[in-house]
Parts: sequence; structure tokens; C-alpha cells
Amino acid sequence: MLDALFKPKAVAVVGASQKEFNMGNKIIMNLVEFGFKGHIYPINPNVDEVRGVKAYKSILDVPTDVDVVHLPIPAVSVPQVIEECGQKNVKFVILNGGGFAEIGPAGKAIEDECLAKAKKYGIRLFGPNCQGIINASPEVRAYCNFTFTRPEPGVVSIIALSGGVAELLHQTLYRMGVGTRMYASNGNARDVSIPEIIEYFGNDEGCHVIVLYIEGIRDPKKFLAVSQEVVKKKPIVVMQAGRSKAGADAAATHTGALVRKDITSDLIFEKAGILTFPDEESLCQAAGVFTNQPIPKGNRVGVITNAAGPMVIASDFLSNGGLQIPQLSKKSEAILRETLHKEVTVRNPIDVLATGTPEHFRTALDVLMEDDTIDSIFISLATPFFVDNVNVARQIAEVNQKKTKPIVVALQTDRTVFAEPVRILKEGGVSCFDFPSSASKALITLTRYGEVLKRKTGKIKHFRDIEKAKVEGIVNAAKKAGQKMLSAADAYTVLNAYGIPVADWEIASSAEEAKKAAKKIGFPVTIKADFESAAHKSDMGGVALNLKDGKAVREAVKKMARTFKSTDLKFLVQKFLHGGKELIVGSKTEEVGKLVMCGMGGISAEVLEDVVFRLSPVADIEVKQMLSSLKTAPILKGIRGEKGVDEKKLIEVIQRVSQLVNDIPAIQEMDLNPIIAFEDRLFAVDVRICL
Amino acid sequence: MLDALFKPKAVAVVGASQKEFNMGNKIIMNLVEFGFKGHIYPINPNVDEVRGVKAYKSILDVPTDVDVVHLPIPAVSVPQVIEECGQKNVKFVILNGGGFAEIGPAGKAIEDECLAKAKKYGIRLFGPNCQGIINASPEVRAYCNFTFTRPEPGVVSIIALSGGVAELLHQTLYRMGVGTRMYASNGNARDVSIPEIIEYFGNDEGCHVIVLYIEGIRDPKKFLAVSQEVVKKKPIVVMQAGRSKAGADAAATHTGALVRKDITSDLIFEKAGILTFPDEESLCQAAGVFTNQPIPKGNRVGVITNAAGPMVIASDFLSNGGLQIPQLSKKSEAILRETLHKEVTVRNPIDVLATGTPEHFRTALDVLMEDDTIDSIFISLATPFFVDNVNVARQIAEVNQKKTKPIVVALQTDRTVFAEPVRILKEGGVSCFDFPSSASKALITLTRYGEVLKRKTGKIKHFRDIEKAKVEGIVNAAKKAGQKMLSAADAYTVLNAYGIPVADWEIASSAEEAKKAAKKIGFPVTIKADFESAAHKSDMGGVALNLKDGKAVREAVKKMARTFKSTDLKFLVQKFLHGGKELIVGSKTEEVGKLVMCGMGGISAEVLEDVVFRLSPVADIEVKQMLSSLKTAPILKGIRGEKGVDEKKLIEVIQRVSQLVNDIPAIQEMDLNPIIAFEDRLFAVDVRICL
Repeated sequence: MLDALFKPKAVAVVGASQKEFNMGNKIIMNLVEFGFKGHIYPINPNVDEVRGVKAYKSILDVPTDVDVVHLPIPAVSVPQVIEECGQKNVKFVILNGGGFAEIGPAGKAIEDECLAKAKKYGIRLFGPNCQGIINASPEVRAYCNFTFTRPEPGVVSIIALSGGVAELLHQTLYRMGVGTRMYASNGNARDVSIPEIIEYFGNDEGCHVIVLYIEGIRDPKKFLAVSQEVVKKKPIVVMQAGRSKAGADAAATHTGALVRKDITSDLIFEKAGILTFPDEESLCQAAGVFTNQPIPKGNRVGVITNAAGPMVIASDFLSNGGLQIPQLSKKSEAILRETLHKEVTVRNPIDVLATGTPEHFRTALDVLMEDDTIDSIFISLATPFFVDNVNVARQIAEVNQKKTKPIVVALQTDRTVFAEPVRILKEGGVSCFDFPSSASKALITLTRYGEVLKRKTGKIKHFRDIEKAKVEGIVNAAKKAGQKMLSAADAYTVLNAYGIPVADWEIASSAEEAKKAAKKIGFPVTIKADFESAAHKSDMGGVALNLKDGKAVREAVKKMARTFKSTDLKFLVQKFLHGGKELIVGSKTEEVGKLVMCGMGGISAEVLEDVVFRLSPVADIEVKQMLSSLKTAPILKGIRGEKGVDEKKLIEVIQRVSQLVNDIPAIQEMDLNPIIAFEDRLFAVDVRICL
Repeated sequence: MLDALFKPKAVAVVGASQKEFNMGNKIIMNLVEFGFKGHIYPINPNVDEVRGVKAYKSILDVPTDVDVVHLPIPAVSVPQVIEECGQKNVKFVILNGGGFAEIGPAGKAIEDECLAKAKKYGIRLFGPNCQGIINASPEVRAYCNFTFTRPEPGVVSIIALSGGVAELLHQTLYRMGVGTRMYASNGNARDVSIPEIIEYFGNDEGCHVIVLYIEGIRDPKKFLAVSQEVVKKKPIVVMQAGRSKAGADAAATHTGALVRKDITSDLIFEKAGILTFPDEESLCQAAGVFTNQPIPKGNRVGVITNAAGPMVIASDFLSNGGLQIPQLSKKSEAILRETLHKEVTVRNPIDVLATGTPEHFRTALDVLMEDDTIDSIFISLATPFFVDNVNVARQIAEVNQKKTKPIVVALQTDRTVFAEPVRILKEGGVSCFDFPSSASKALITLTRYGEVLKRKTGKIKHFRDIEKAKVEGIVNAAKKAGQKMLSAADAYTVLNAYGIPVADWEIASSAEEAKKAAKKIGFPVTIKADFESAAHKSDMGGVALNLKDGKAVREAVKKMARTFKSTDLKFLVQKFLHGGKELIVGSKTEEVGKLVMCGMGGISAEVLEDVVFRLSPVADIEVKQMLSSLKTAPILKGIRGEKGVDEKKLIEVIQRVSQLVNDIPAIQEMDLNPIIAFEDRLFAVDVRICL
């Protein structure tokens, strides 16, 4: 519970001095100037007061209980002061200074000591190497931070390890006129974690949207679990940096952040329903639009404009963002035809022309609010000199009060010349943006969140026709034997045990056995050398395809025996399948859990990287989304008279793989590559299972 | 020559009234208030003055010559007034009103009449359905426009057909503090065209950068020719909208703009060296950075920051934009190690820490200016309370005066609290941006233009071992016969005539002839049915592959003869090639000229759309760029022990195709699909040539 941190009744600042460039001095200043509702205690043995507030020689001298203590002091002095905070029964310590894990082993040792001491007394650490927190709500007004943006109370809460970026986001929201609820920048985040703060902000009714900046996810399981719940109540918008090699290098050295490959983060965001943004500005604009607009029921937008070019730009952005600009109802069209200028071609987008009057705007707005084919409204508003812009603004502000459908406005004006309409729109809580593109993006964001709220999670199918114990036995035996990869026989047995169809196979130890097996399976067959570390067997001549008779089988086996002189050499004899499409299905273990993957095989997967990952376990709906998001999806469906693949069976195989890797955590990685898929069946013809 | 338009000595406004919401009144107001250096003549028979300027009853009554006449009057009245303007020897008429081609045939007829009358008198038309022009240079100050953004004289010139977008760009630049040179928004652009204006702005020494918004290119050949020359002197930055279906629909109806497929525009931008931007904001920011920063010699950036997170963001953007953040020289590192805080890990990016002093910034700046491994400087500047930010700003402004390497600053501050450092940076001409991402993009833009200026255009190889006359003969005969597609025999003959290697082939009329031909060519062979409109022959059973003997050839021919009962049915007998990689090379005719295309064949081209187009003729360098920009490029080079294709021969084939389609303009479209390519040779095995 972080109440004592975000709603402190008393805050002390150790090392606050009277010097202008002292960090502690600035924290006292922020607390005082922002009007903190609790007690403020500068701690400094050498002065009587700081910024007019009585100072104490030691934390132990403070007359009341203390919730939060800032320690903007050299790292080496911190452990001793934590000791004193413990005696004082302090609840949270904010370690504003640097010199901890981010500078290397020596700093790490101090950080460890701080954590140990804190644990001893039940103190929670915030930071180290961090800015602190803000709670701008009028009943608290805790500016526990040394930054300089004076918050306006609002409904957006900000979270970022990086102080620089947290402050940047805060400034940007401030400049946009968007108020702040709470703010947390916890640097190295050694104790109080991002998921913990997300959860807290999730439960804070005064917070309507959470803005998050990250450079990697430390505790992905908790992050996912917490976020999934919070997103049901309020949107979380995120930007992740450190994605490029240069960015990751820069991130690694600044707060010792553990940068995980960003694909994992994206999968978590996707699964949790967190909305992602590519840059700081679009992130803040997304947060802003959630503060005053309702969530649309669908993706159908009605567009009103008084200039054509900006509407062309908006149409591009809206439709690229998945929004529809549908035809209006006959009734709507009739009303518009009666009201608008005669030159207007009545349709959606509605171009009221540069000479469009307040009445024209109002009619168009009313029509769109009424029309059932429309879920949201986009207005491109220029302010021509020769129009009554004040009244146009009034109409928009008035309709905006209804809050039944979101309205965004691309307001193209000179804000000094047209100050009055700008004021009316602002005070009316209308979401205004400088550009058709940015207004479009904001509407897309609202629509995406509406889709998150509505989305079906599907069912995680739990297959019962499986032999889990058998697979556990195989895997345990292999682990005991020190194998890092299952033998072909074991791997195919595992697939059989989980109902994953494989091409008929037998294991043979000699050419004669292989011939016999081939006859049983039926020609043509493939022979694969099978021994530990046979990963790249095909490059080394360990695979012979399409063998049509016993002679060919014998020759292939003999040749492999000469090439691979391994004592444990065996031969996998497998039905060779003509035709069909090559697919790849696999799984990989990451800190967050098991990922499943699918795609077309061959160059689609390996060169063009047209594969898709999801976090397992995957529901049926998710598997369908995986398949349809492939660029090669049309091939799976069948194009140009060619037959597609058996999608139902493919979905089942992916779900079975998902269940297998979750049932058997020891499986670190597996690949079915390729699966040969036909219109009505499919078979794995090669498999690799790593432990 | 557009001098009389952009530097008029006298401007008249027909229909200017004393009414507030009258468009002509606003134009007079703009001319007066902006301080036009020439004569202003309101034309209105009913009033004595407008905005304090003496009015005349007719343009014929005006006492001086008139360069420009505005006609913000109903379309139907325009032709008559043009007649009068002709008598007065007016040079340019700006048709501000609507009601012309954009509303349909009736308006188009008026537009035609206007153009005819103008031509009769040698008057040039600007518009119709347009805003007008601005020339903000102090010696002219012509605000011939009804918009409301008061220009600050500067070096950026703006061009857009769409008045709404032109004004939006102008406002944005104004808000950014970037001044305007000239401005042209010409609506339907019936006479004075975009390329004409680009050329004029290109020759205007006071213009340092041209900002362009388009929804399609009308006269692509002239556009390309003009832009290529202008780009050598100054950057052109462009945004194109109307790219999506919704956007194109919206564009089509607003100024009757002819929207061409945007791929063609992108090829023109690429060929001309015009820099493209995805949205209005990045477009304007690009323009801004060219006004006060030099062009870097290369892509190596030195980064200075006093907050780590913003540096992580910048590193992502910079490296995704193709910039390098290289190691500094030993000398630079030594200087930094001596000067900066002890805790700083000296490297690039240089993190001077939040407590970094003015001296630290200055040292880092001097080091980067001196270091030969660095071409440009990126600064991420937060303004912590506890630092002498005024002096930091001074150091940056001072170094910025050198203008030897570009400097961009991501300034993260509260512009009211830190007004003084902001003022210093602004007055020092430092390029400041609100976000690390936007500052990064601006630096990427500067670097891209540097690359445009340096880029080699390569040589257009002109092959002499070709038989142009022979191909002209074939094509003319086919055209005479009304063929839309060449027969296989003709098509292969054309390829032979242009030295494009094809698999050995013969034409046969019967099964016996086919057998004989197959023997001559050598088995295995492919047989293809050849008759007019055999485009989808393979779907219909018109192709038989890999025929190994005479019997198979005879059977294939007989079967085809039964299937295709065409009287002109012939059979192409062709060498069947085993192995090799399937490529596709082709050409398509667009208004701008001939495009050439290449890629891997099969699903890479057809489903994954991994093909690349260029405007022909293509130089060797361009062809190499085409090949290396393919996602499948590694396959062409050879991956995983597999051999690649003969790149030299492939480049030659593409150049030969380029020459062929340029030599023979009647070839509308051609496809070599597939070309079978081996390590040391390649052959077209199917060809389609459309006339």
C-alpha cells in the first residue's frame, strides 16, 4: 500500500540547506510553494530554518510521525540515516541522490546495505537515483520532488523511472493545459516498483489515465498481471525507448535498467491492452484526449471541415488508423442538404466550405450526434476572417457538453488573433489539436481503447487427450543425462503425446532396419541422422529427402554413417510428403513466460521475418489474430486457385504447442520447422526441442 | 517569369467592399496592414474608399499600370472583368472565388472561358478557387491574400494548392518563430503551375528552403526536371496527402486535383532529392532547421545530455534515422576526462549529468566541434533548478555562431520559469525543439539533405549491341495488327535484340515440329501455348514443364491443341532450367515516364510485395540501390551456404530493360517473370510485352 508515500501527512528533507543550488532546498521550496497540506521538516544541524520553515538537527528530533523522508545526500551517508529513520518509524524514504547501482559494484554495495537496513525497519525505499513523487490533488498537494514544473491538479498520472523523461512528459502536459494527478519517478527502482505504482494508480479514483515511459520491463509477470486489471478501469498509454542498439546501450548505463528485447514488451502491452506510442508528443496527446472525451462505441467517424486540404490529411490518417468514414443515413443527408450552402456536395466528410456559418456547423454536429452510423466526430476548423468564428466555437463547445460521442478538433488558427473562440473551446473542454494529423491520432487512440474494452479474450483450450506424465518422464530423463536437446525419437514421442500430428516415423539403427521401417511407412521416405547436437544436420549431409526405394535408403544410411561417426548415431525414417505448404510453429521462453510463434516457413520466416509471436497461453481468438496478421495470410487462405491450409487444425496445433510448453516448463525452446500443411491435414516433419 | 506576380508594383481588388465579412475587404486590409510598398486599388462602383484607400469604379479608371488584380467575385462575373483587365494590360489575375472546375462541368466551362480570355490578352491566371500569394520581403511586403497569419520576413517559401494547408503550414512556421519569404496557394492551378512556382522560388536568392504540400503531381515530367535543379541550390521538403483511399476520395472532389498513385510521386521525390515528411509538424520543423543550421558533412553525431532518459530516446531516433554515434578521438576523451565530473563515464553520448555546469557544456561542445570523427551535434538540455542555466545557454549560443557543424537542441524546460536561457538560445539562432524525438528528426533531415547534395548520380549505360530498328519493326507491325500484346515469338525476339538473355527457344506449329525443336534445344523442355491473349495460359493448362522426351512433348502439344482451339495457336518450346532463383524484372508506363521494377519472384513479389520501382532511365548506382533495398537482398547475395545470383548480369538486364522501354515508347508494360538466375548466368523464361 503506497498511501503513506502519495498521501503523506509529514515530509522531512535530510540535508536541506539554505544554499540556492542545494537539492534539498529546492524540495522544501516545492513543498512550500505548492502548498503541501502536511508538515514540512528540513533536517540540518547547522541552520534554524530553510525557506522560512523551522529546521531540526536530526530526524529523531521531529515532533510528529513522519511518512516520507527525502535523502538528497551523498550515497555513503545514506545507510546511517536510514537507521535513524527506522528508529523514528518512518514509512518511506526517497533516495534522491546518485552514486548507487548505476555507477557500478561499489554503489551497488551501498544500495544493498540501504535495502537491508530498510527491510529491518519495515521502511520502503523509493529510488535510489530518483526524483521522487508528486500528488497534486487539492487535499494533499505533495510536491516531493526537486523539479520545476508546477502541477495543475488534474486526472493524468505519470510514471517513469527516468527523471528526465518524467519531467519532460509533465512539462508537455502542463503546456497542453492538461492537469496532473500523481507523478512517480523512481530511478533505479530498487524496492517500490513500476507494477506496484501502476496498481496503486489503478485504484486511485481521481486518476483517469496513466502515462508510462519505460526502457524495459523488470518484472514482466507482475507488470502484465497488474496492467491487465488496471486497463479495464482506465487507459494506460506507454512509450518504450531503448529499442535500438544505440538506445539500449545508452539505457543500460544510466539506471542499470535491465533492457529486455523490446518484442517481449510489445507482447505484454498487446496482451494487457496497453496503448503504445512512438514518441513523447503523441504519448502526451493521447493522455490529454482521455481527460475530456468519452470512449467511442466503434470506429465510424463523421468528419466536418471548412477547408478541404486539411480534410484530405485527416482522411489519410483516420483511415490508416483503422477508422471508417461511412456514408450518412438518408435522414442526415436530407437535413444537411436543406441547411448547408447549395454548392456543398452532401456526404461524409461534410465540407461546410470556408464560408460555413455557425448554423451550418451546428446542424452538421447535431446530425452526426444523432446518426446511428457514427461513433465519433472529427472537426477540422480553420478560422477564416470572414466568418463568425466566436459563434462557431460556441456551437462546438455546446455540443461537446453532451459527452455521448467524442469530438476532436484540429484547430487551425492564430491563437492571439482569434483568442475568443480559442478560449470558448478550451473552457468548453473541447479537445483541440494544432494539426489534422495529431487530432486524427488522438481520435484513433480513443477508438483503440474502446476496442480494448470490448475485445473478447477468447478461451484457453485445455486439451485432455494428452500424456503429460510421459513427456515429463522423457524430459526428466534427458535432463538427468545432461542433454540440452531431445533426440529425434524423444521429440517426436513428445509431439505424439500432445496430439501434434507428425509424419509417420520410425527409428532405425542400421541400413537394414531403415529399409524395413521405410517399407512399413511406405515410400518415398526421408532419412535423418539422429544424434546429440544434430542441430545443423542438413547442412552437414544428415538429411536425405524423397528416397523412393530400399536401395536409396540403404545408400543414404551408409553415407551418413560414414559422415557422422557418432557412437549414438541412429536414423529417423520418416514419410516424405509431396506438395503442401511449409509452415513454422515454435515456442521460446522469456522472463515473462512462454512465447508461441507461427508463420510460413522458408524465406518468409527466415529472410522476410514474417512471423508473429504471442504470449502463451494463447486463446483461440489470439491464434486467429496471429494467423491473420501474417503478411502471408492470403497464402494460408489459398490464392490464385491454389488451395489453402487446414486452418482449424493449424489453430489446434498452435494451442497444443502452447499447452505443451506451459505444462512442461523445462522446455526452453521448440520449433516445428517445417510443418507440411495441406488443405485437410498437416504434419510436423522436423522438430527441435531444447531444454 | 513570375516577377510581376510576386513583386507587384500595383495591386487592385475587384469587388472590395466596406462590409466586415467581405473577402475583398480582407485583402485590402492585409495589403494595408502589412505595409505593401506598391499601389493599392479597391475597385467598387458603389464606394469611395475601402479601409481608408481610395476606391475606383472600374479597373479601367485606375491611374497607373496594374500588375495583379484580385477577383474575389462570383465565378459568372469573372470572364467579363478579365476582358477589362486585358484592356488595362494587367499581367496577373488572382481568382480567389470558387465555382469553377471544382464544382463540375458548369464551373469548368467558366474556367475555360476565363483561360481563353486571359490568353487573348497575355494575362496569366492564378487559381481559380485559391487564396493568392504573399511576398514578405521588406522591399515588397505584398500580402495578396485573404488569410490571417501576419508573416514575419524570413527565408522559407511555401507552396500548396490547398489554401487550408498552406495557411496551416504558414501558421505553424509563424508559431515556431520561423519567418516567411514567399507563399503561393493556387487552388485549381489552371494556369500558373506548381513546377513554375518551384522554379521561381528556386531562383529567388532570398529563399533558403521550399516547403511543399501536394495531393498529387499534375505535370510530373516538368515537376521532376525543375525540382532536380532546384534541389542542388536549396532543400525542398514535401508532404503528400491523399495517399489512402479515403484521402484520395476527399482530394478528388475538392480542387479537381488529379491524384496519381502515390508510388509515382515518391519515385519522383526520390529521383529529385526532395525530402518527404509524414505529417504537417515534422514538415515545418524540417523547414525550420534549414533556416539556421549548416548542412553536416556526414552522419556522425556527437551527443551531449544532462539527463539520461531523453538521451535514450534520442539514441533510438538518431540511429533509426541512419545516424552514427561514434566513439570520440582519444584526444577528445582525454579532455573530457579531465574536465567533467569524476562520476561521468566518458563516451559518446556525453552525459554531463544533471549537475553539469556551463564549463562542462562548453568543453563538451568545443571537443565535438574540434573532433574530426563528428559531423553534427545533438544536445538534450533539461534546466535543473540547481544549475546556472543562463550560462549554459550562453555557451551553446556562442558555439552555435560558428556554423561549422549543425547543432540541434531538445530543450526541456518551462519557458516562462526559464525565460532568460530560452531567450538567449532563441536570439543566438539555436535550433530548439520541445522533444528529443523532434530534435533528432530535424538533425536526421539536415543529414539527409547533406547526403542528397553529395550523392552520385551514376552513369546511364547506353548499350550499343542492340537492334532498335528490328524491335521498332516488330512493335509497329503488332500495333498495325491491333495486338495489345506481343506474341511469344515476337517478345523473345525483342529480348534477343536487346541482349537480354533468354532460355533457348523455338516456335513450333505442330507436335512434330515441337519434338524436333526440343531435340535441337536439348531435353528437358517446357512447352507453352502461344496465341493472342494467352496471358493466363498457365492457369488454363497452356504450360507444360520439365518434359523429358519426345513422347512427353507430343502429348503436351496435343493436349494444348485440344484445349485452345485458336486458329493462330503455336507452341513455344523452351529449355527447362533446373534450380536457380526466380526473379522478376519489369517496366510500367506512367505519366512521368517509364518505371522499372525488380524483385524476387513468387510470393516475395506477389504476396509480400518485396519489389522496388525506380524511374527510368536508371543509372548503375540506382540499380544497385534497388537490389540492396529489397528485403530479399540477402538471398540474392547468397545465404546459408546457398549460392547467390549473378548480380553483375542482373544489373545489366535491368539497365537493358530500362533502355528498351525508353527506346521504344510504345511498350506500355513488360514483365520478365520469372528470370531464372544462377550464380554465373541468368535467363528470362517468361516474358509479357504489352503495347
